[in-house]
Formats: sequence, structure tokens, C-alpha cells
Amino acid sequence: MTRRIKIGVIGTGRMGSVHSRNIVRQIPEAELVAVCDIRLEVAQAVADELGIPRVVYDYHDLLNDPEIEAILIASSTDTHAFMMKDVAAAGKHIFCEKPLALELDKIDEALAAVGKAGVKLQVGFNRRFDKSYQRLHAIVESGQIGRPCILRITNRDPDFPSMDFLRVSGGIFLDLAIHDFDMVRYQVGEVEEIYAMGGVLVNPELNEFHDVDTDVMVLRFANGTLGTIDNSRKAVYGYDQRLEVFCSNGTAMAENEAETTVVKGNMDGFLAAKPPYFFMQRYAPCYVEEVRQFVQCLRDDLPTPTTGEDGRAAVVLGHAAWKSLRENRPVKIREIC
Amino acid sequence: MTRRIKIGVIGTGRMGSVHSRNIVRQIPEAELVAVCDIRLEVAQAVADELGIPRVVYDYHDLLNDPEIEAILIASSTDTHAFMMKDVAAAGKHIFCEKPLALELDKIDEALAAVGKAGVKLQVGFNRRFDKSYQRLHAIVESGQIGRPCILRITNRDPDFPSMDFLRVSGGIFLDLAIHDFDMVRYQVGEVEEIYAMGGVLVNPELNEFHDVDTDVMVLRFANGTLGTIDNSRKAVYGYDQRLEVFCSNGTAMAENEAETTVVKGNMDGFLAAKPPYFFMQRYAPCYVEEVRQFVQCLRDDLPTPTTGEDGRAAVVLGHAAWKSLRENRPVKIREIC
Amino acid sequence: MTRRIKIGVIGTGRMGSVHSRNIVRQIPEAELVAVCDIRLEVAQAVADELGIPRVVYDYHDLLNDPEIEAILIASSTDTHAFMMKDVAAAGKHIFCEKPLALELDKIDEALAAVGKAGVKLQVGFNRRFDKSYQRLHAIVESGQIGRPCILRITNRDPDFPSMDFLRVSGGIFLDLAIHDFDMVRYQVGEVEEIYAMGGVLVNPELNEFHDVDTDVMVLRFANGTLGTIDNSRKAVYGYDQRLEVFCSNGTAMAENEAETTVVKGNMDGFLAAKPPYFFMQRYAPCYVEEVRQFVQCLRDDLPTPTTGEDGRAAVVLGHAAWKSLRENRPVKIREIC
Amino acid sequence: MTRRIKIGVIGTGRMGSVHSRNIVRQIPEAELVAVCDIRLEVAQAVADELGIPRVVYDYHDLLNDPEIEAILIASSTDTHAFMMKDVAAAGKHIFCEKPLALELDKIDEALAAVGKAGVKLQVGFNRRFDKSYQRLHAIVESGQIGRPCILRITNRDPDFPSMDFLRVSGGIFLDLAIHDFDMVRYQVGEVEEIYAMGGVLVNPELNEFHDVDTDVMVLRFANGTLGTIDNSRKAVYGYDQRLEVFCSNGTAMAENEAETTVVKGNMDGFLAAKPPYFFMQRYAPCYVEEVRQFVQCLRDDLPTPTTGEDGRAAVVLGHAAWKSLRENRPVKIREIC
Repeated sequence: MTRRIKIGVIGTGRMGSVHSRNIVRQIPEAELVAVCDIRLEVAQAVADELGIPRVVYDYHDLLNDPEIEAILIASSTDTHAFMMKDVAAAGKHIFCEKPLALELDKIDEALAAVGKAGVKLQVGFNRRFDKSYQRLHAIVESGQIGRPCILRITNRDPDFPSMDFLRVSGGIFLDLAIHDFDMVRYQVGEVEEIYAMGGVLVNPELNEFHDVDTDVMVLRFANGTLGTIDNSRKAVYGYDQRLEVFCSNGTAMAENEAETTVVKGNMDGFLAAKPPYFFMQRYAPCYVEEVRQFVQCLRDDLPTPTTGEDGRAAVVLGHAAWKSLRENRPVKIREIC
Repeated sequence: MTRRIKIGVIGTGRMGSVHSRNIVRQIPEAELVAVCDIRLEVAQAVADELGIPRVVYDYHDLLNDPEIEAILIASSTDTHAFMMKDVAAAGKHIFCEKPLALELDKIDEALAAVGKAGVKLQVGFNRRFDKSYQRLHAIVESGQIGRPCILRITNRDPDFPSMDFLRVSGGIFLDLAIHDFDMVRYQVGEVEEIYAMGGVLVNPELNEFHDVDTDVMVLRFANGTLGTIDNSRKAVYGYDQRLEVFCSNGTAMAENEAETTVVKGNMDGFLAAKPPYFFMQRYAPCYVEEVRQFVQCLRDDLPTPTTGEDGRAAVVLGHAAWKSLRENRPVKIREIC
Repeated sequence: MTRRIKIGVIGTGRMGSVHSRNIVRQIPEAELVAVCDIRLEVAQAVADELGIPRVVYDYHDLLNDPEIEAILIASSTDTHAFMMKDVAAAGKHIFCEKPLALELDKIDEALAAVGKAGVKLQVGFNRRFDKSYQRLHAIVESGQIGRPCILRITNRDPDFPSMDFLRVSGGIFLDLAIHDFDMVRYQVGEVEEIYAMGGVLVNPELNEFHDVDTDVMVLRFANGTLGTIDNSRKAVYGYDQRLEVFCSNGTAMAENEAETTVVKGNMDGFLAAKPPYFFMQRYAPCYVEEVRQFVQCLRDDLPTPTTGEDGRAAVVLGHAAWKSLRENRPVKIREIC
Repeated sequence: MTRRIKIGVIGTGRMGSVHSRNIVRQIPEAELVAVCDIRLEVAQAVADELGIPRVVYDYHDLLNDPEIEAILIASSTDTHAFMMKDVAAAGKHIFCEKPLALELDKIDEALAAVGKAGVKLQVGFNRRFDKSYQRLHAIVESGQIGRPCILRITNRDPDFPSMDFLRVSGGIFLDLAIHDFDMVRYQVGEVEEIYAMGGVLVNPELNEFHDVDTDVMVLRFANGTLGTIDNSRKAVYGYDQRLEVFCSNGTAMAENEAETTVVKGNMDGFLAAKPPYFFMQRYAPCYVEEVRQFVQCLRDDLPTPTTGEDGRAAVVLGHAAWKSLRENRPVKIREIC
């Protein structure tokens, strides 16, 4: 090993603490030198657990630290854009959690700052690092099963997040489906048109802020491929994550993982295990791998695997889906961009 | 056994010969007394094979036969409507293959004649008699997994029918997807709105007559449930027939059947068998069961399980899908009816 | 079609009535001209159902009928051997249900009579006609996955037959496992040595007549392949039929079939359907196919696919298993022959 | 967290380096203070990678270190027994890789020393810590599917280890099947009698030292349950790990895991991924969990989950299997003990 990349983490909540643990325990090519959270005691607890030498309250303190080469932003979504601008101005590379922002103008300002500073930016689209989705991508990309005709995604959460979070989340298309919007671009390419239907079928509280808990979409890609996506906030049997790319000479499907391989047979039938309940378990290896690759890109001066443009494009699709739902008509993506 | 229902079959092509064999060999409650085909030699071959006493060229001959109680219509689609009218006028019960007709006015005329004559009519929506779809229906109907939220259908043919057939088939929504339109009504209920995208992704010949070989649709049901359907004319791995009804407290999925249960493991992985290649194999037991139930309804004077209204409703959905595709907008079903 | 083979059936109980229905309804190359049962009313009921012209009480009446070319013996096991002798002497071909007899000397006498008369004999080892086992056999036979190393069979009945039947059945190795003993020879070849353990783990009534309800066996084949078999009289989840041939370059497995393809997901997990409950459902197509092939062999003067030697060999293995269990030692097959 | 357990690792080869990494990165309740290997450079490399302060050549140096509370022995099998004696005499707790030794007298001496010293001993039967086998155990233990009737294990390696290793490994029953012998005791209880067949079906080199590459066994348990095991050194499709406990009211099966969830469908069928190729991948989480629990037992002064008696019992079964194979007869376990 040559050089270890020194990293600071901003935001040590759910995702930030996972990233911190991963860097310390599983990414020897990096060194976590400081953590930051406006809830200082939260940052301190993570630092204590992992033996991190520095804990700060104000993220500007990290920007002034010449030792730090890269910043991982895992604070709340509304802070991503201005932090990216500041971090870029400080000449440090950036790993930023998704979504970059809910507003496109904020994203554009941040990306402009990143571009001007010439720092690297990676967006936390963790699913691109899943071994099953990568395998599926490799099969489709190879052309061995012909050209993509129909992409099909089922993405259902096991349960609602808190109402407080939902109110500021950007709604189902910018929070939950944002991963699908990135995945479809990864698997098939650019989307041209989208139509979305949604409804409040499970939790009437969502009506208050005009969100939906269930949606279905169809998409047309620039290369002619068609797609369907369905989303739900509440799949009682666990986190339902399925993907198929049906092609002219075959099909490739990524099925759900399961908590165990145990099957119990009795008079009722054969009972198999549920999928892992939560995204933190289902995608645990991806959270390690995405940061490991980010670190590798810094060490080898390579482009990052998920770029600012990827981050922007998924948000554009989210807005297109909302516009389609609100106006009940198919929306061309170029209407949004 | 009390009384055997005496049946005549009109049309002894692909479906008609299957129905004829089924009646003779597997439905002892019925008796196939005559077959009719404008290609007399085709009808004669079926009669020879099955020991059927009477073969006619003109279907009116069956209508004048007082012995015959019921007529099974399996001739080409464009003949269904006027034959139904004639058969009804002759006071005989009717089993008619799907679709009843491609044009709604013809269907309405035929249904009016059936209603006036007071004869029974069953439409050949064979999939309603599949044990897996029936089991799925029973699970959803029972309420044990809550209310339906998302219905998802994948229906893909193994290969294109002849171009000659396709030209007069009514296109993908009235030929292939017609089964899905009946299935969604069976599983969830009435559809309120539909949006369809389609494309010619595999066989450019279809452009000549403005059909598509691939489509995706989303639907909204009167009860709020949302749905997605995807169709293709060419799934090289065989007839792909999948159905899911995702509900507020669980999900119920009908997966593909397989030609054998054999799995071969080697350095490439584990290779499982394809689904049965063709609808005649996949749904073979349904073709027996639907006619068996039709016969039972005649014997016990019960309503038929798939009615003329079912036959009409599926065609309405097909037209709505075409209208949506042509005008690139969501279409309310009441715009068609 | 040229000539229809005229068949008489002796024994119209469970298997005999299935065979009778199959011949009449699904094997047009044959004609069922007479049925025989010592319970004349049972035979009469089958004849009425199927429109069979002749019903007899004494099977000798069939032997004297010059029209009848072949006899299907489906009476109780203790009658098979002497009937075969009589039928052979009458110069008629024989399809005989398994086992040919429980005693080897009786089998030898019957086979000698068959050989002397020069008639064809087929034994009812239905499982050889299962499409999954045939596919597995084809894979192994082709050599594409190397040489067989380990054969593994799980064969478990859903529930106990009647105690009356069990008392005269020959016990678990000659009744239940007899199918496995034929299957191992079909898939891998001749067995050289066997060791069996058994126990009464479920139903203590079996102790009365020294049978067991559960057993496990290991086998060594002449070609060096090793095997394991496990059997139970009571698998509450249904008829459990699994087979694997593990080879030097891969493996081939035949898994259980399922009643439906429906999977229900809820908080308990994913529940799939049980296998078909009973052998009559699981192997229904095999019962047709074995007799169809028998008829074809008569029409084309070909050797039968399952011979008298196959019938004898399976019984030899059953006796070897019993000897092994009784003496608690491995038994060489040549000790029995 | 209260106290961290200070551990020294003896042997930093394949398993020792895995354990070292796990302790450092994933078991914060422990601290790896020293590593030892007679190949000092190997130990040094591991220490460098993980930042371990002390590296020694002679394991006695660890025994004299008062700071060290526990020793993890991962050196070659022939050193386990005498090291255990020394470590016990030094009053330190022991985690020892399997098998404890190939010879029972050496095991007995070591266990006596452990008992006399009153230190804790855990044996590295990693599979007991697999979530699927634990779930299966919980199902069976609960009694919800009745009493165990048939246990069935398939345990096949993906390929041969080096011939050098095989020569001193104790052969297939003491090396490969030793895991099965522990697993059967974990799932069902004590074994009473065993019969084994084996053969050299793949690699004739094994004939030199009288080992086999393929075996099948049957077992009788003290509680009457019967069992089958099959083993191979070469399953080209990957590490094959299957386990079933069939019970009087149902069955519980642990199936193979798969490298990905991707299924590719084309004209050949549906191709699913192979199982993880190697035990280090398949059981990776178990290696962490077993040491984590060992550490927990030291911290809370609890009995270890896999004891010296477990370690001995598995070796006894291995010797019984060899005796059975050599003498071609069933062997009672009490003949060995």
C-alpha cells in the first residue's frame, strides 16, 4: 500500500456512522481523521467507538485542515448543495450522499463549483455497487442476450420512514424512487419520457403533504427500450428489490436476497425466508465498496464511478415523475432539464 | 351421471381441434355430435380421429339440428359475432373463443341477441381456469393479505405468430394483451384509466400495419389499485406468464411453470428448464376445465363463469390501450364504452 | 394409424381403473375390449363409465378370447406371477404392474413361461417415463457432466397406506423403495452391494409385522458409483420425490413438482405450494406414457422399455435391503440372486 | 463496553490470518496484541497489515506474556494438542481450530490439561454459527415439525486441496466430513452407529495414501433418528452445502447460497449463479461470530458454545467412519470411544 487517503466525515447520523465504521474497519487504503456533526455528542460517540482523533461541530473546521484530502457528506439533504460548494472551494474531493439536492438550481450551482475547483465528486448511488446488479449489467452490456426491450423494477420499502422525514424528503419519487432512476440509467441508458400514477393506498397521513405511498411508472428510453417501475412504502414481508432487463435474445433478472436459505415444509406448504428487512442490511457490502472505489479513484487519479451528472439526472427524473403525476400526462425529460 | 350435453363445434383449426379432443376424451358429461369447418377435409380429419358421427360444411346445418344443445365457436375472430347471433336465434347455448369481436358494435349486437334469446354464453378466457391464478385469486379475495395495491403482469409470447394472422389480429392489445385485460378484472376489478407505451423493437415488419411487438402499460382501478403490464411477442426462453398482486399485508405471485424440474449444475452455474413453450401446453388443463364448467352450467342451469360482459370489457380495454398509444395520453375507460 | 391393439385389463381397482381410463381416453392406438375383476361390480362400473363392451369375472375368459392381443395385469401382487404364466401360455403379450411378485422363485417361473411363449412383457415402472427423470438420464448418459459419482434419492410417501395392505406389501423395501431400486438401475446401472438401516419412528403398529416406516440406505454400483436413498411412509407436506446424480463434472437434480406456482409473501416469509399429494397425480402422465409405449412396442414389434429382468432386479434389491436390515451388515447383491 | 480481551494468535496461515483480520476489524470487544508463526515473515506481514504491535516466532513467548488472556490456535493440526496443553498450563483461555488432533489419546491429554487448568476451550466448528443452520436448529428444537426422522447432509468441496495437505489431513472423514460429524450432533444429537462406503472416483493419486475422494454414509442416532451423508472432494460448480432434517410433522432444509441472485434466461433455460466457491467466502460471517462469542464468553464467564467434548466427539465419528470403511461393516460408536 502506498498512500492512505485522509478523510473527514460530515454528518454522523445513520448513513454517516455506517460510512465511518466502514472506512475505519474495512478500507485500509483510507484513514478517517475527523468527524463532524452539529449534534456534537453524536459525532463524539462515533469517534469514541472508532478511535477517531478529531471531532468538530462546524464543518468549516474540516475545510481548513490541510491534512484532509476528501470529505464525505452524509448530513441532511438540504445541506448537501452548499456544503459541496464550500468543500470544492477548499480544494477537497467530495463523496456526497444522494440526493445531491431536491432543487435543480442548487445542484447546478454545486456542480459548477465542483467543476471550477477541479475536485472529484462521487454520488452515493450504492446500488450500482451491488454484485447482482453489476452481474446483470455485465450480461446485458455484453450483448449476449440481444438488445434491451423491457426493463422492470420493483422497489418497495418494508415500512414508512417517520412522517417528519417524509415531509422534507421530496416525496416518493425523489426519495424512494431516486435509486430506481439511477438504476435504469445504469442498466439501459438515458430516459426520454415518463408517465407516473400514484395513490395513497396505505397511510392517509400522506395526503397532508400531497405525497403518495404507492406508485407505478412507465418509461421510454432514448434507445427505444420501454420500462416499468413499481414502488411502495410498505411491503410487510421486507425490502423488496427486484430488477429485470428483458432483451431480444433472453432475459436477466436479479431476484430478492433472503435472510437465510432455510425452507420449512409442513402441511401449509414450503416456507422460505424473507428478504433482509432493511436497506442497511441488504446493501451493506455496497456501502463499503462505493467508498473503497472513491478512495481508489483519488489514489489513482481516475474518474469516479458515479458522477455529479448521475446525481443530477436522477433528480431530473424524480421531478419529471412528479410533474407527470400532478398533470396526469406523459412528460418528456427535456421538459425538466 | 344424468344427461350428457350434446355439442357441435364450429371451426376445427388449432383451438377447435383441441376443444374437440377435450370434449371427447375428457368431458364425459358432454357428447360431441358434430363438427363444422369451411375446410371440410379439416373437420373430417378431426371427426375421423375422434369418432364423431357428423361433419358439416355450413354451420347453419348445426343450428337446425334439434339434438344439439350447445355450440362451441372456434372459427376465426371475424366470424364470432354473426355466428353468435345466429346460434342465439336458434336457441342454442354458446361457448365462444376470445375475442368476441374486434369491434364493439358487433359485440353489442351479438350480446343483445344472446340476451334476447335467453341462451347462455361463455367466453373462452382460459386463464381464469388455471389452478395457480385461481389460488392467487382465492388468497387475495380472502383478505388475508390486505387490500390490493399493485398488480403486476408479465405476458410474453415465445415467438411471433404468422404475419398473415397479425394483420387481422387487432394488434398486440386486442390479441395478446386481451388475456391480461381479462385477468386484471378477474384479480382486482374494473379498470378506470390506462396508459400504454409500445414500440417495434424486434420485428420491423410490424411497422407496415402499425402494430408494436413490445409494450408496457400502467392502469388505475376503480378501487384505487395500480397496475403494470408488460408484453412482448418474442421471449426466446419460452412463454413467460407471471402475475403478482401486491397487497397492504403481503403479496401473492404466480411464477412461471417449467418443462421439467431438472436443474443441471456445472461450471457455468445452475441451469433450470424453460417454461412450456406454447400456450397450448401451458394452459392445456384450462381448456378442458373451461368447457367442463360450461357443460356443468348447462346441466345445472347456472350462470357461466366468464360472461359476455367479460368478453366485451376486455375488448374495451384493448381499444383504450390502442387509443392511449396512438394519442400518447392516459385514457379513461369510460371514453371507450 | 394402422392397427389398434386390443387389450384386456385384469383388476380394475385403483391402478387398473387408471390404466383403463388412460387406454380409452388417451391411447387411440389401443382399444380396451374387456375388463376383469373378481369383484364383478367394480369391473362393471369401470366398463359403464368407459363404454367397454365386455366385463368378466374370471380372467381365463380373456385368455380364450382370440381377439385380445395383450393383457394388462393390475390385480393384487400375489396374483401377478401365476397370471403371467397363464397369459403367456395363452400367447398374449403382458403389461404387469410392479412388483412382479414378492418371491424370486415365482418371478423366475413366470419369466421362464414368458420366455418360452415368446410374448412381450413390460413391467409397470412408471417413473422411468417421467419427463424430468428422462431428462436427467439424458444429461448423465451424454457424458457432458462426466462420470456418475454419487446418486441421491429421496422418496417419501405422504401417508401410510392401510395396515391391511402393509401386512402383505412386502414391507417398505419391496413396496415403497422398489421404485427407487428400479430408478437407480435406470440412472446409473447395476448395484453390487447395499446397506440399509430402518426404524419405526412414526407408527408403532408396524412393529407387529416387523416392517419399518423410515429407512436410509447406501449402495455401491458395479461401475464404482456410490448412492444414498432415504424413505419415509409419512411426509406431511406431500409426496416427496427428489433425485440427484452428482458427477465428476457437474450434477443433475430432479426437484419436486408443486401443486401451483403461487408464492404468498407475508410477515412469516414466502410460502410456496406443496408437491402433488399423491403418486397418482404426480406421475399421472407416466401412467399414460408407459402403456402408450407398450402398445407401440406391440405394433412395431420392438423390445419393451422395462423388461421382466428389470422387474426381477428391483425385487432382488428389495430382498438385499431386507437382508441387510435384518442382519445389520452390508449385503452383496450376488448373495440374493 | 467494559474490558477488551487481549488475544494472541498462533499460526498466521490461511485461517490464522482470517481470524486476525476479523479480531482487529470486526470484534471491538477484543484486542489482538500479538501474532506468532514459525514462518516469522508471514506473521510479520499480517502484523504490518493490521497494525499488531508484537510478532513472535516461538509461541512460548505468548504464554509468558501476562497481558494475554486468550490464545487462538490456528497452526497445523499436528501441533494443536501439545499447544493446548502448554497454553492451558499457562492459564490462558483457548480457541482452537478443528480438528483438535487426529489421535484420540492426544486429544484426551489436552482436554485433561484444559480441565485441570480450569481454562475455557472453544473448538472452531464454524458452521454452528451459520445463520441458516441456526435457524434450522431452532425450528427442529422447537418441536413445531415433530421429531427428527431423517437427517440428510450433502457436503462437497469445490476442488482438492494440495496432495501434501491431504497426506497429513487424516483423510476425508477426519478432514472434510469432520464438519458434518459436528453438525449432525448439533442438529440431532449423539450418534450410535455408522456405516461408510467410499471410493476413488476422481483422482487416482489418492490411492497412494489410501484416502478416498467420494463417500456416502448412513448413521443411526441414540434417539432413533437415521441419517445420510455424502461427500466429495470435487464439485465443479462450487462448494455444495446442503442440510435437511426431515421430521414427523414436516421438514427443514438449508439450501445452498448463491454468489448473486441473477438468473439469466435464454434458449438453454434459466441459469442461476453458483454457490460461493470456497468455505472462506461461504462461511465468512461464521468465522467472525464464533470468535466474537468466544470473547463474549470470556467477558461474561460463560461456557463456550463449542466445547472440547464437541471437538473430541467429531474425531471419534471420523475414526468410526474410517473403521467402517476399512472393515466394510457398521461400526458402533462405543467401539471407538
